[in-house]
Amino acid sequence: MDWVLKIGGSLFPEKAIDLCEFIVNQTDLDAEIIIVCGGGEFANKVRNYNDLLGFSNTANHRSAIMCMDIIGTLLADKVEGLESANSLEDALKVSEHGKIPVLNSYTLMEDHDPLEHSWRVTSDSIALYISNLLKAKLLIATDVDGIYTHDPINDGAKLIDTISANKLLNFGETSVDEFLPELLIRYQSECYVVNGKYPERILSIIKGKSSKYTLIGGN
Amino acid sequence: MDWVLKIGGSLFPEKAIDLCEFIVNQTDLDAEIIIVCGGGEFANKVRNYNDLLGFSNTANHRSAIMCMDIIGTLLADKVEGLESANSLEDALKVSEHGKIPVLNSYTLMEDHDPLEHSWRVTSDSIALYISNLLKAKLLIATDVDGIYTHDPINDGAKLIDTISANKLLNFGETSVDEFLPELLIRYQSECYVVNGKYPERILSIIKGKSSKYTLIGGN
Repeated sequence: MDWVLKIGGSLFPEKAIDLCEFIVNQTDLDAEIIIVCGGGEFANKVRNYNDLLGFSNTANHRSAIMCMDIIGTLLADKVEGLESANSLEDALKVSEHGKIPVLNSYTLMEDHDPLEHSWRVTSDSIALYISNLLKAKLLIATDVDGIYTHDPINDGAKLIDTISANKLLNFGETSVDEFLPELLIRYQSECYVVNGKYPERILSIIKGKSSKYTLIGGN
Repeated sequence: MDWVLKIGGSLFPEKAIDLCEFIVNQTDLDAEIIIVCGGGEFANKVRNYNDLLGFSNTANHRSAIMCMDIIGTLLADKVEGLESANSLEDALKVSEHGKIPVLNSYTLMEDHDPLEHSWRVTSDSIALYISNLLKAKLLIATDVDGIYTHDPINDGAKLIDTISANKLLNFGETSVDEFLPELLIRYQSECYVVNGKYPERILSIIKGKSSKYTLIGGN
């Protein structure tokens, strides 16, 4: 497996479908990809219930992972060339058969349970965990161009080309989850953060060409 | 296992929590119960996305089961004396340890896959399938008193004490899913439909006392 493509829940449904259709229609892709989805509006609903009722970190964590799997199941259904997989083994088989697997990670995460249970850990860190298992590179497709020097709503915010995970630790809230830089350091790994609304940027990264993104380095 | 208690998603969160707290606080219950939850607002969101995008029956079916598991996970977390279980084996262990298991049925339903994939099959039929596996009786707690002669919104609708599944087949939409009567006939089984907003009614049924409900017979 070459790439884990994490598709942000905020891109679901239309932009996530457009992105996946673009990817599966590349006949000369020459890269094996596995998709992991964010929890989107389903995870927002868990957050809302949590604000109201206050669940344990573990219940929130598990529920949010099920939300990722719902979005993944619906996305895989909608795009010909994608196929849902309930385990890494199934995902690798899907890939062997020439389709792009969309991983339902609930059972894997229940069995391995490698990450702390908190809202600091979301689908970004889970996708990184999976990419590390598979020795694959990680590409996080979100709804902004990458990591900015400060909140892009404010004047003068600039897109960062490359940043160390160490430096990102002090950035507070960004377009990736709070735990991701810690995990990048632990794995001495790196990841691309890119705007999923521009599928050609993702293709450029996969093909090793120049593009608009932020590269977060874990070294 | 004596009873499968299916808790309707429309009762979540407050009424479902109240009902479960009432049940776990019965010190002389003398019955083993396993809980299966409806998908509530999460399943409504799948329906909304489906209206918008049109997913396959299988994707809807799988996603709706994950929604049941989210509600179950959150409910089990909120009520002391309940515990989430990802398999029947785990559920039986939870029960042996004196807690009431709330079953996450996704893996079980993926492995067995016994029911048609359509919106005719919801958590009611899934709870019946599980009760049949466990040779347990089924009690469906919903947000109305049971099955009515016709829509309770209309004048003169009367609660039905007992109805055959065969007769219910011709009722169209009721407070239970459309497939349930067919499955009751297949299993030659029966189930109680009762208002979950009145926990003492559920307790009465479990204790074999008189109560307000509809009994649907499959014979």
